[in-house]
Amino acid sequence: MTHEPTIFDKIIAGEIPCHRVHEDEHTLAFLDVAPLSRGHTLVIPKERAAQMDQLSDEAAAALGLVLPRICRAVLKATGATAYNLLQNNGADAHQAVMHLHVHIIPRYPDKAEGSPGSGLGITWPAGSLEDGATLAAAIASAIGE
Amino acid sequence: MTHEPTIFDKIIAGEIPCHRVHEDEHTLAFLDVAPLSRGHTLVIPKERAAQMDQLSDEAAAALGLVLPRICRAVLKATGATAYNLLQNNGADAHQAVMHLHVHIIPRYPDKAEGSPGSGLGITWPAGSLEDGATLAAAIASAIGE
Repeated sequence: MTHEPTIFDKIIAGEIPCHRVHEDEHTLAFLDVAPLSRGHTLVIPKERAAQMDQLSDEAAAALGLVLPRICRAVLKATGATAYNLLQNNGADAHQAVMHLHVHIIPRYPDKAEGSPGSGLGITWPAGSLEDGATLAAAIASAIGE
Repeated sequence: MTHEPTIFDKIIAGEIPCHRVHEDEHTLAFLDVAPLSRGHTLVIPKERAAQMDQLSDEAAAALGLVLPRICRAVLKATGATAYNLLQNNGADAHQAVMHLHVHIIPRYPDKAEGSPGSGLGITWPAGSLEDGATLAAAIASAIGE
């Protein structure tokens, strides 16, 4: 599935500069210009998919493959000790640029090291699972279709 | 890299039950028992890696490949219109179970539909990028090592 060109397509095309950290046939990674902490990196597929559910098998496997390598490099280069991967799908879920992107957001024991921010703020309003068997069966069935 | 067995290893081994939505050679997906919204699903590699940076190439590609398929199924089965993927690495980054897991957390236009929660709470304390060229070069260099 394709979507209208975004600023990320222009970055892939080299029409807009970026601070690139990695590029291969299928993926591009570069520093976020509005970081939540030092080393905040975006990893995107070159395939024009807006959301994870729209990504082809080939692009998905390539994106998966490169993620650990980039995470290792971010940790090594920054000295961060922990990090969040976040990938938002849909405006209702905080997605701002409508081209699939994975945020790598480092966290530092000393927040001053990783400022500004520093890092992703998460709130976790968990409930308890109801009708788990029915729901799991519905999702499992949908995977086959 | 390996880590001490966690509850997820017992789920993989079938010693603890789960509401399974997908299983293949490399991955397992099941409903989170403390969901942030209806359809909150965990996707894990069977490989015993605590964090994304510890995952092997083979397991990483397999995890990447399966993610879009499970996301599509969660959307189809639940009617959610948006969702977040979150993957926490390290106790300082909100990781509770020390076996790599990707959260798929649906979001619903009508929050009551997706209650409790409903969904991931995010705060986004963004700054601006300083020393981008130097930092990008350091990360790029670390990928090669």
